[in-house]
Amino acid sequence: MTTQQYLEENRDRFLEELKALIRIPSISTAPEHKQDTHHCAVQVQEYLVRAGLDRAKLYPTAGHPIVYGEKHLSDDLPTVLIYGHYDVQPADPLDEWDTPPFEPTIRKTEHHPDGAIFARGATDDKGQMFIHVKAVEAMIQTGNLPCNVKFMIEGEEEIGSPNLIPFITEHKEMLSSDVILISDTSLLSKDHPSITVGLRGLTYLDVKVRSARADMHSGLFGGAVANPINVLCDMIASLKDENKHITIPGFYDDVQFPSERDRQLMRDAPFDAQEYMDSPGVFGLEGEKGYTTYERTGILPTLDVNGIWGGFTGEGSKTVIPAVANAKISMRLVSNQDHEKITQLFSDHFKSIAPETVKVEVKPHHGGNPYVTPTDTAEYRAAADAVKKTFGREPVPMYEGGSIPIVAKFKEVLGVESILMGFGFDTDGLHSPNEHFGLWNFYKGIETVPEFFQAYSRMKDGV
Amino acid sequence: MTTQQYLEENRDRFLEELKALIRIPSISTAPEHKQDTHHCAVQVQEYLVRAGLDRAKLYPTAGHPIVYGEKHLSDDLPTVLIYGHYDVQPADPLDEWDTPPFEPTIRKTEHHPDGAIFARGATDDKGQMFIHVKAVEAMIQTGNLPCNVKFMIEGEEEIGSPNLIPFITEHKEMLSSDVILISDTSLLSKDHPSITVGLRGLTYLDVKVRSARADMHSGLFGGAVANPINVLCDMIASLKDENKHITIPGFYDDVQFPSERDRQLMRDAPFDAQEYMDSPGVFGLEGEKGYTTYERTGILPTLDVNGIWGGFTGEGSKTVIPAVANAKISMRLVSNQDHEKITQLFSDHFKSIAPETVKVEVKPHHGGNPYVTPTDTAEYRAAADAVKKTFGREPVPMYEGGSIPIVAKFKEVLGVESILMGFGFDTDGLHSPNEHFGLWNFYKGIETVPEFFQAYSRMKDGV
Repeated sequence: MTTQQYLEENRDRFLEELKALIRIPSISTAPEHKQDTHHCAVQVQEYLVRAGLDRAKLYPTAGHPIVYGEKHLSDDLPTVLIYGHYDVQPADPLDEWDTPPFEPTIRKTEHHPDGAIFARGATDDKGQMFIHVKAVEAMIQTGNLPCNVKFMIEGEEEIGSPNLIPFITEHKEMLSSDVILISDTSLLSKDHPSITVGLRGLTYLDVKVRSARADMHSGLFGGAVANPINVLCDMIASLKDENKHITIPGFYDDVQFPSERDRQLMRDAPFDAQEYMDSPGVFGLEGEKGYTTYERTGILPTLDVNGIWGGFTGEGSKTVIPAVANAKISMRLVSNQDHEKITQLFSDHFKSIAPETVKVEVKPHHGGNPYVTPTDTAEYRAAADAVKKTFGREPVPMYEGGSIPIVAKFKEVLGVESILMGFGFDTDGLHSPNEHFGLWNFYKGIETVPEFFQAYSRMKDGV
Repeated sequence: MTTQQYLEENRDRFLEELKALIRIPSISTAPEHKQDTHHCAVQVQEYLVRAGLDRAKLYPTAGHPIVYGEKHLSDDLPTVLIYGHYDVQPADPLDEWDTPPFEPTIRKTEHHPDGAIFARGATDDKGQMFIHVKAVEAMIQTGNLPCNVKFMIEGEEEIGSPNLIPFITEHKEMLSSDVILISDTSLLSKDHPSITVGLRGLTYLDVKVRSARADMHSGLFGGAVANPINVLCDMIASLKDENKHITIPGFYDDVQFPSERDRQLMRDAPFDAQEYMDSPGVFGLEGEKGYTTYERTGILPTLDVNGIWGGFTGEGSKTVIPAVANAKISMRLVSNQDHEKITQLFSDHFKSIAPETVKVEVKPHHGGNPYVTPTDTAEYRAAADAVKKTFGREPVPMYEGGSIPIVAKFKEVLGVESILMGFGFDTDGLHSPNEHFGLWNFYKGIETVPEFFQAYSRMKDGV
């Protein structure tokens, strides 16, 4: 039986198994879902066993466990290490979901005429991770696995992978490989496949502005004391100029743009502004002057407030001047920017612009460095060939806006490049209500991955 | 017997009667205290009868009753209308009271070496309102009342006086008077008496900025779409210039400053910055350039954000670009500013400064107009003379930061100016745990009010 025949025969079972995995609310940031998250890891382990891997076990960490598995055929064959994650983002706001976030339901959409699974984690990353589990199962069960394979599926990607770096540092030998394969990014479209070659890094901080010990009455104190909310708004507003250029001194020092050729390829790639805007129903596009949307999300760094709170936020009115105001601020980083350096630059600058009437605290959360995949390697060519074969068109090398901070760490600690072969769409509602993953995409992924294994093994054999 | 002799002889009884009134928990906002609040109104009515008023009755309203009473001597004499309230704020947080809020106890404090009554409502406004009841009793019982007097004591001041405007509109004739006398404000200090001549108005609005239908992933959309929190911060920051001057066009059109003489009197008044800052533990004073603290809270309008919220505000990090951000914004108004006009100016301006990538909603809450007592009138001169006689020093005409919206309505509906002759201190803990009212202040008030009646009657007679 060929791998493709096996895939055909097991389509329905694959989908049911994925739905079972999605039903587990493995929200890694929520302490109340700790048991669910662990349960999800055990479930992934069982699927790896079922796929035919020789070793499949949970590695406990200080947080959620890492699921590892491998199939070793020969020391003479190359080794592909597959990385993914089984944890998901929180599902709130719950009332914006058309169906409950952990009850996967299939519905058709404009982009998914064959149907899509609606659920938290459907595309990020359970569906995409599961593609590899099932593709490898098909190769093993039909005797067509052409090289060694390893799986490393973590449960803390959505909270910054705090325990993965200690893990890979400790298990370098076990994780030795020739290439790392990851599906946690997007395709341009069915007709215009793409491979992600750039990921942005991330710096994320909590800031607190305090002007007094206790809240104040706006009649007695209004006009004569610093209102920490107004101060915080002033400070945040000053972080960008009128062209949306970030004003933190030194912020752009380590930014290098891709070659003019690569920028041109991205400019030539189809971009449907309306479609891009439709998924979150965004009212308009804007950004730094002089750049396309792909460039704004791919090769430029950003600064966004992810949350803000302070004072009276209930129904009605309360004439209070609060003592404190808070915000969560993150920056997406590109090319050679270093997240620790940027954290320091931000922190120093933010404190320096505070008026004397307030005290400012800056507390960094997790961060990560950007990553760029070289495109002149055997693994990139193999990936491009596999995609060309199943999609019928050469993929565009895309710089994307998201962050998978661990990819830069893989290069740093394991010395291995990553191939980012994603199968979802940007319009799939990642991290948002009504997240979904197309059935076409799911099956196309399972079909493409074995082609990569074949092409890569051939190329490495030829080298 | 002179009025002052009567006051001397009845000091202890006055205090016991006030304590009895304070023991009634007349919390107007609490449905479970509806009977208590009614009982308190009946008690006030009985004290008015005891004072010797001819008519003293309760007027029922849709909420708590209004207590009315009058002593009519002659159509040829002027009439003083006394306004006050018998309802009080809730007492929570209860565990911050040193003694139970409705069991009045006398303790000495730094500002009250002769002792103060600690209880909810002690100064706001039972103690201050009772000053007038006892002063009028003394004048009537000694045959020294020099003019007509009316009392209007309401039970809904702490919930915005919803039924008082219909009442005064309906009973204009009954309430006809030459001046309204109110004790619901503060003195600077024992050594520096003051009369409040300015109250700020208020405009309070909810604003909402939306850039999309649903929340977005900051990786996919960061840099290419409007972040409503950043936009809201930009918009709020732009509402004041670098000197803290409000930038809304037309905002200051109806602002008139007091005479240079009155401003100089305020500048000369003692101001203890440390004491002012200590109560909320504020780190520093700031405000519009070129003004003192008294001027910033008294004669300048303000714009403060009372609450702000949007995006992810839980523990940890979420890389979301929210669809919506919200704020509660209020403006304290002065002199001739009209709260409805300012609401419109704010709303128009706020919408006009929004970028095209967002939609803005502005929802007004309640509002009220500022009030300024003219200082070149018989009634103000009478009040200043009375205070000078009993305190031994000319009072400072003070512009205060708080709002008593009903005072502007008295002018509008009844056509009569108000004299705001308060006897408490700002440090007496109004609306807070351990509210108290000094015994010295209580008796000094009872001594001062008859002097006002005498001086006012003489001046009106002389006109």
